[in-house]
Amino acid sequence: MRGAMAFAAGALLLLAGSARPDEGMWLLDSPPLKLLKQRHDFEPTADWLAHLQKSSVRFGAGGSASFVSPDGLVMTNHHVGRDSIQKLSTKDKDYQRDGFYAKNRADELKCPDLQLNVLQSIEDVTARVNKAVPTDATPEKAAAARRAVMAAIEQESQDKTGLRSDVVTLYQGGLYHLYRYKKYTDVRLVFAPEGAIAHFGGDPDNFEYPRFCLDAAFFRVYEDGKPAKTPHYLAWSPNGAKADELVFVSGHPGRTSRLNTVAHLELARDMQYPTFLNLMRRREVALKTWGERSAENARRASADLMRIQNARKLLVGMVAGLQDPAVLERKRSEEKALRAQVEKDPELMRQYGDAWNRVEQSVKEMRSLYLENQLLEGAGRGLGSPWAFNSTLFNIARTLVRHAEEKDKPNAERLREYQDANLESLKQLLFSPAPIYDDLETVKLGDSLGMFAELRGADEPLVKQALEGKAPPARASELIRGSKLKDVAERERLFQAGKKGIEASGDPLIRLARLVDGAARAARQRYEEKVEEPQKQAYGKISNAIFALRGRDQYPDATFTLRLAFGTVKGYPENDVRVEPFTTFGGVFSRAEEHGQREPFRLPQRWQDNKGKLDAKVPFNFVCTADIIGGNSGSPVVNRKGQVVGLIFDGNIQSLVADFAYTEAQGRAVAVDSRGILAALRDVYGATALADEITGSK
Amino acid sequence: MRGAMAFAAGALLLLAGSARPDEGMWLLDSPPLKLLKQRHDFEPTADWLAHLQKSSVRFGAGGSASFVSPDGLVMTNHHVGRDSIQKLSTKDKDYQRDGFYAKNRADELKCPDLQLNVLQSIEDVTARVNKAVPTDATPEKAAAARRAVMAAIEQESQDKTGLRSDVVTLYQGGLYHLYRYKKYTDVRLVFAPEGAIAHFGGDPDNFEYPRFCLDAAFFRVYEDGKPAKTPHYLAWSPNGAKADELVFVSGHPGRTSRLNTVAHLELARDMQYPTFLNLMRRREVALKTWGERSAENARRASADLMRIQNARKLLVGMVAGLQDPAVLERKRSEEKALRAQVEKDPELMRQYGDAWNRVEQSVKEMRSLYLENQLLEGAGRGLGSPWAFNSTLFNIARTLVRHAEEKDKPNAERLREYQDANLESLKQLLFSPAPIYDDLETVKLGDSLGMFAELRGADEPLVKQALEGKAPPARASELIRGSKLKDVAERERLFQAGKKGIEASGDPLIRLARLVDGAARAARQRYEEKVEEPQKQAYGKISNAIFALRGRDQYPDATFTLRLAFGTVKGYPENDVRVEPFTTFGGVFSRAEEHGQREPFRLPQRWQDNKGKLDAKVPFNFVCTADIIGGNSGSPVVNRKGQVVGLIFDGNIQSLVADFAYTEAQGRAVAVDSRGILAALRDVYGATALADEITGSK
Repeated sequence: MRGAMAFAAGALLLLAGSARPDEGMWLLDSPPLKLLKQRHDFEPTADWLAHLQKSSVRFGAGGSASFVSPDGLVMTNHHVGRDSIQKLSTKDKDYQRDGFYAKNRADELKCPDLQLNVLQSIEDVTARVNKAVPTDATPEKAAAARRAVMAAIEQESQDKTGLRSDVVTLYQGGLYHLYRYKKYTDVRLVFAPEGAIAHFGGDPDNFEYPRFCLDAAFFRVYEDGKPAKTPHYLAWSPNGAKADELVFVSGHPGRTSRLNTVAHLELARDMQYPTFLNLMRRREVALKTWGERSAENARRASADLMRIQNARKLLVGMVAGLQDPAVLERKRSEEKALRAQVEKDPELMRQYGDAWNRVEQSVKEMRSLYLENQLLEGAGRGLGSPWAFNSTLFNIARTLVRHAEEKDKPNAERLREYQDANLESLKQLLFSPAPIYDDLETVKLGDSLGMFAELRGADEPLVKQALEGKAPPARASELIRGSKLKDVAERERLFQAGKKGIEASGDPLIRLARLVDGAARAARQRYEEKVEEPQKQAYGKISNAIFALRGRDQYPDATFTLRLAFGTVKGYPENDVRVEPFTTFGGVFSRAEEHGQREPFRLPQRWQDNKGKLDAKVPFNFVCTADIIGGNSGSPVVNRKGQVVGLIFDGNIQSLVADFAYTEAQGRAVAVDSRGILAALRDVYGATALADEITGSK
Repeated sequence: MRGAMAFAAGALLLLAGSARPDEGMWLLDSPPLKLLKQRHDFEPTADWLAHLQKSSVRFGAGGSASFVSPDGLVMTNHHVGRDSIQKLSTKDKDYQRDGFYAKNRADELKCPDLQLNVLQSIEDVTARVNKAVPTDATPEKAAAARRAVMAAIEQESQDKTGLRSDVVTLYQGGLYHLYRYKKYTDVRLVFAPEGAIAHFGGDPDNFEYPRFCLDAAFFRVYEDGKPAKTPHYLAWSPNGAKADELVFVSGHPGRTSRLNTVAHLELARDMQYPTFLNLMRRREVALKTWGERSAENARRASADLMRIQNARKLLVGMVAGLQDPAVLERKRSEEKALRAQVEKDPELMRQYGDAWNRVEQSVKEMRSLYLENQLLEGAGRGLGSPWAFNSTLFNIARTLVRHAEEKDKPNAERLREYQDANLESLKQLLFSPAPIYDDLETVKLGDSLGMFAELRGADEPLVKQALEGKAPPARASELIRGSKLKDVAERERLFQAGKKGIEASGDPLIRLARLVDGAARAARQRYEEKVEEPQKQAYGKISNAIFALRGRDQYPDATFTLRLAFGTVKGYPENDVRVEPFTTFGGVFSRAEEHGQREPFRLPQRWQDNKGKLDAKVPFNFVCTADIIGGNSGSPVVNRKGQVVGLIFDGNIQSLVADFAYTEAQGRAVAVDSRGILAALRDVYGATALADEITGSK
């Protein structure tokens, strides 16, 4: 409760404040030099920035990390690596529960389908993209033209450099940048603590502070079967951070909506987030109840469940934030001020004046198209789950079906995730040997088919065709039992078989994916044309209006690409109490005792056994004012010297409005302290070799 | 999963079966004499029936029970008494967790707001009700006229007999019966086992079978401060039941929808149940996450949480059942057959032929009016929670506000729950000294206000007025902290203060209740006029058509009034396995060990300590084919001699379609075995005096 209640106060304080705050997720090639100089008297050099960039790692499909030794050692959060840890676990070797440490490199465990990317260079391709899109094109034509030129740029770059190449849309279309990445696909697990200390306090403490989590894990990238050489890596600070110190966060914030208009936020508040939240609650209840039936069920469901609970708690906070009239009032007055500035200038008015009405129009379309697109196509697109068919095997089936159809088209005309530049990532996911559990798949698919029937009505033709006259749980069981896609060789066979092979397949999941594919593609196309493309154009205009009025010294909304944030290590006031910036090892033992060592506040046995060895005063977690959001998890926190002082793993509950507004009064990024990580490695886990490697003591 | 998958098989078997099954929730004054004779060669006498009726007890607001000694001893389920057990508990004396046993009558604990009712007589008042309703009246006029005559009948009866008098609408308006009850308001707790054995297996085992639950509790009714004399009570069977034996269940099934048309069931499937289910999931997640923050939170939330989880699991089963095309197909063909019979007879056609179209019309209205009515008025009506204001204190505030307004109207024109005949029950709830926890209230109200804002949009005028410019959690906190209604004396003061006093009150919850009352009353009136009244009339016609075509030998849909069900003790086939009818004490110890004594499969210490004393072969739970539904919980199971052989506490998952269809192939009622109850009382709890009292050994 306290978080939500604090929103109003936070927003008001910010309105009243005059100093420019530690706000922003800045592009690495246009860092906030003036702000840093003004507020913190710090001037990063080009080398400082380049080193930090090349030491920063994009982890898998949604997290951040960093190199922390010259031998390819990667540090991230336990929860960012959780999916891989889970995939390496079995009933008898449960690394998620018990932790893992490879004393020797030979013991490091290869992750089945993990990809890390390291940003090598940034190139502005705005002019080329814009030139390829005729100014008088319809939204459909504009989108097609833009997609084509972006694919061409990416392909050229990849052919030329051999690097993964992504054209990134910044400022909602105000700028286009080409990002080139060095890609690592042989990634091995080095160290993970027990889940119970990684997410100590579980759901109740998630997004709260004070915290006491060793949310850290170490991996290593390999090339040609040997540890990769990574000359750009972050040194370990000998002393850690102290209160009021300036720190930096280099990571991959996933998505923000700070440019969103009030009409757009109102839709998020009243429809989009509540709909998504209902889905998360539904899945949480389904997995939790299934997990309670046995310890093995609980193990199988745990990674999904934690991801869902995290999303649920985040969404509860976001909806509560948007429902706070003070928060939207602030956005409303900012929007009014900007529009008034535009209206004063006839040329700006001519170019950008209609942008807000265009967003409003797209929001109306979104209201009616959102659900259908989510149900059939899904937010993740291509490789993510559509809401109606929540199953890893269904995703594999759909990917096979679509690949067979897309691969014969010219590259630029394909769905984006099937373009040549993405082929390798697609194959890595498709042919992953990670375990897939029939029982868990059946529960997930059965529940989502049930939702499909509820939301479209059980008599709707596509629903009836998908269910083939059965109740959803029975149909899910039949589909999962009958499919051969658990077998990676069968996936490879179908991947090679092409369109005819797919059409001839009797696999029930392939048949289902084919059945719904027409409707899914149509829903996606409608959504792109009526919602995404008009929004892209309108927000591009708003961005350009801001550039024209206030200069280029702005940061774009987050896009899961590398950003630099900065901030100060400091506590905050909450309900007349001052929350201190640091917690300690002593604190985690006290908190476990307060809760009688009951889950999720039960310390792992190793911690209880080694309590005597640990110094109660060692800093464990801390908070700072840096501007972060989901995707930043696993980001290193570094000091002015670029040395690791912490590891971002969360934001506090007051920061959950960060999607649409930064607040410095109470919003905080939460990190594991580098001193806590080191002491735990040495004194709890006896991971001497690892501790020596990160401190360069070897 | 297995339950839901089995629906299709069950329904098909039933269609194929020819023998008339053990179906029906029969009125005590028109028992299924022919069926019992035909199928079981049993002819109950009038005395047998009257004794069973007067030994049966309606427990509180939604359960069943029975007298089991001449000194007012009442047996029911632990889960039926849970609300009272919880209200008697505190942080330091947690009877829900630890159980309770009063060795002496002086130690029995008075429940703060519990009412038991025992049916004394039934009188047919159909003619008088129908006469008072002009045949050409509009729905509004008809409803008003009917409400007036029913209130008059009740008032007359209460004045004359001093008994609680309810006019019950049977066959959806085909018949009206006057039920007179002896009412007990001094009810004391005698015995409750630990929650962990009462609901052993928790949510995972709920609605499943085999089961191992001591879901039993004992209370005692008092009159004038002394144990009431209850000459009608059920004797304890010395031998219990055996397989294939005929048994009877006498209890208060709450609600069924077996007469509902297919159009009506489709709405339930696609809108009504999914909407309700989303609410249950939402509340489950909110209470579960709040409960995880501390053991005391968990204790405070537990009764609410278990009720919610039970509803959620039930609704999941019901939706899955309705989504099974085989189930609705059966209803469709039954409806078609009935309509064909009506269409063949011009007179029937003239009188009843439009009934199905009228239901369809009302269902259309329901689609648009349901949510608003639930949000503002609530399913429970009057004393139940509206969805948007889920708080005990809000309910008290609303009851005070409405009572002040209603009491000055003529009795017949008042909202039903404020009529004189209901005044005493209303006061018992209003002035209950049961504990109300500010923190729990705030969580519940905050979440429901958030849902209110989501579903109507945060900018809707009533939402904005209710929130007074604050985020829902902050507003909830302010409302609960600011209200003085926790103080029973303050409630009494406001109850006496009348309309002027209420209008002058600055209590924030009184003000909120007044704010929304106009809209809530309007929503209720619309719903009654457009949905309930037309449905009542149309289903009354369908009932009469059935009477005309098939005679009076029918049972009406459940109405939370006393019914007699009968059935056979027997197992059932499931996935090629034969599920045996009985479980044993040995089974509960095995199951606890299988799960490593982890919650919710952890046996209470007393059970673990007394394992040696217990005979592993004692029957613990059993199933029978009797036709039951929610509200039957706590019903005695008796043999031909009318002796107690068991205590209904659940249905298996295959029986969850019972709301709209009885299935004998797999659907079963689940009971605690009388031998298990007795052995536990003697050998686990040392409750010798209680065991002696129920067996008459004293």
